[in-house]
Amino acid sequence: MRLSRRGDVDPFIVMDVMEAARAAEAAGRHIIHMEVGQPGTPAPAGARAALARAMEAGPLGYTVALGLPELRAGIAALYRRWYGVDLNPDRVIVTSGSSAAFLLAFTALFDAGDRVALGEPGYPSYRQILRALSLEPVGIPTRDENRLQPVPSDLEGVEMQGLIVASPGNPSGTMLSHRALAALMDHARGRGISFVSDEIYHGLHYGDRAVSALEIGDDAYVINSFSKYFSMTGWRVGWMVVPEDHIRTVERLAQNMFICPPHASQIAALAALDCIDELEANRATYAENRRLMLDGLPTAGFTRIAPPDGAFYIYADVSDLTDNSLAFASEILDRAGVAVTPGLDFDPRRGARTLRFSYARATADIAEGLSRLQAFMADRSDK
Amino acid sequence: MRLSRRGDVDPFIVMDVMEAARAAEAAGRHIIHMEVGQPGTPAPAGARAALARAMEAGPLGYTVALGLPELRAGIAALYRRWYGVDLNPDRVIVTSGSSAAFLLAFTALFDAGDRVALGEPGYPSYRQILRALSLEPVGIPTRDENRLQPVPSDLEGVEMQGLIVASPGNPSGTMLSHRALAALMDHARGRGISFVSDEIYHGLHYGDRAVSALEIGDDAYVINSFSKYFSMTGWRVGWMVVPEDHIRTVERLAQNMFICPPHASQIAALAALDCIDELEANRATYAENRRLMLDGLPTAGFTRIAPPDGAFYIYADVSDLTDNSLAFASEILDRAGVAVTPGLDFDPRRGARTLRFSYARATADIAEGLSRLQAFMADRSDK
Repeated sequence: MRLSRRGDVDPFIVMDVMEAARAAEAAGRHIIHMEVGQPGTPAPAGARAALARAMEAGPLGYTVALGLPELRAGIAALYRRWYGVDLNPDRVIVTSGSSAAFLLAFTALFDAGDRVALGEPGYPSYRQILRALSLEPVGIPTRDENRLQPVPSDLEGVEMQGLIVASPGNPSGTMLSHRALAALMDHARGRGISFVSDEIYHGLHYGDRAVSALEIGDDAYVINSFSKYFSMTGWRVGWMVVPEDHIRTVERLAQNMFICPPHASQIAALAALDCIDELEANRATYAENRRLMLDGLPTAGFTRIAPPDGAFYIYADVSDLTDNSLAFASEILDRAGVAVTPGLDFDPRRGARTLRFSYARATADIAEGLSRLQAFMADRSDK
Repeated sequence: MRLSRRGDVDPFIVMDVMEAARAAEAAGRHIIHMEVGQPGTPAPAGARAALARAMEAGPLGYTVALGLPELRAGIAALYRRWYGVDLNPDRVIVTSGSSAAFLLAFTALFDAGDRVALGEPGYPSYRQILRALSLEPVGIPTRDENRLQPVPSDLEGVEMQGLIVASPGNPSGTMLSHRALAALMDHARGRGISFVSDEIYHGLHYGDRAVSALEIGDDAYVINSFSKYFSMTGWRVGWMVVPEDHIRTVERLAQNMFICPPHASQIAALAALDCIDELEANRATYAENRRLMLDGLPTAGFTRIAPPDGAFYIYADVSDLTDNSLAFASEILDRAGVAVTPGLDFDPRRGARTLRFSYARATADIAEGLSRLQAFMADRSDK
């Protein structure tokens, strides 16, 4: 049987790094994981307890396609708690992780051949999901002086039907201010460009909180998830907020494409909304990890770092050290026993000169990883 | 923001029936559910216990994209148990329900504009998922004398790049014999048509077991799920078996489109593979329900029934009773207190003269539903 052209998407390079790290561990080495974009913590205890009860109380059959009504209401309430925004729960679509939200958003908004822009560096799956749906990703190189986020002048003259932004960004951790986000939304509105705001790292900030597109306007698809702040990656439960006149279309697509998000995960997610103390304790760990990283990475020699406003990543320009980040990451894994991600996944043009460091794991691991990186770099510069 | 053309899919009519039934219950009426395509039983006790243990043993983070290796091996072993087929576990792709399997299969196999044929009547989401992916569904009307399944002569002269078959079928419950399935696969192979075999109702048979496409050849995408036989609808875990030279493409698509299937559901599914006694007890319930239905529906006056080889549905030609199945289903709900599904979801051309009855619920409900249907039909024919 033939394979489609659109199925010919790029591999995830971080997956190869993870496999190399796994192989090293299987061979008996101890590896510090700074490549992985997920918390080392489990789903909150309250979430797990709620599911344990529900599993014995009755069958967890299909839910309605848009998700449990109480979960949609709970998510709407989160917008009041986090942003002071009143949100109609009917606009909240519970999804099988943000992955399903992207599939739903892109099919609801775009037809085959449409062009959708995204900042580089950025989350690699945007590009691959777009291709799989016969859409054309349009990479917008961003600049250091704009905190590695797109600005309206970057978009002028570029044909596009859609624009995706992420704040805090992955891999950069940089955020868009209210003013910067509003400028992008204005630009999109003026040109009839559909605007998708990826807010999956909201809740994980270390200074000012992140701004939601919903604070600025209702004409955006806002995508979020229980994976990061709520520490529930493997549960595959996220959400999307859509304009009121898009709800019915997205509902029909969701009914057919997914039937419903995982029922068990929805129950756990509903309880997770109330596990504030445990989640804030996780955030305090990230804050301490971040402090160690901002101190330790420059000491080691990684000095060109994007402003890490949120998420749990630090993106470093290593062009003074290498022009082959894949080989450099491999050398770091091999010699330092620290797994890091080469920038190529995030920026096909400039990622050969960047690395992403994740600080999502336990603080002791971060400290050990930094110490290994410092020893490795000292040894390397001696040669 | 504009909506895409491909997002303009048909509504699921059964969802409107379910909503009407829910409203009737909210108004205090007792409704028997013969509209719902899911078991009334929970996930097997062993599956729930395994998850309860795993939740407390460690974080349930992302798994690898193709699923837990032990689950893939367990599914491969099921092919030996059920069909006597040796299957390389590398070919097993764990998915977020059969829904995700269809999304993966269609993006891996087809490009925008490709035509994919499916028998009518059939599962309505095939058509809608194809449309959402900018593919063109091609309905193939099937005939009673072919057990409502397509035969090669139905396909001759019809342009198509893909063909989906389902045995046992939904809504019909009819199966393809080894010979009938092989004839379709031969036809597809001869014309370079990609073949997708939906085997989601396998395990639920009441005479001969269903035949898997993998018993006939390796050049097919075979899709199955833990939803039906394993009684795990809301858990959203299924699988797909692909040719060896398609694994890497499907893996890349799965990494980007889904990251991974729900980890918790994968753990429950792995344990469910061993819960044979409980699952066979469920099947015995369906067998008894089916016996009651085959006795009671004709007594009530629903005499034109497709051969119900498997699954938990009976598809009835009611053209002697109505030419508006939607209004008829509404009348049955209103006057008999039994929710049934009009055929329009399954067959846009002929479904105005058909109904689908599900017997997936408890036997006492089935008996009560039949008694209500008999009283309703007797009263109706008196007028």
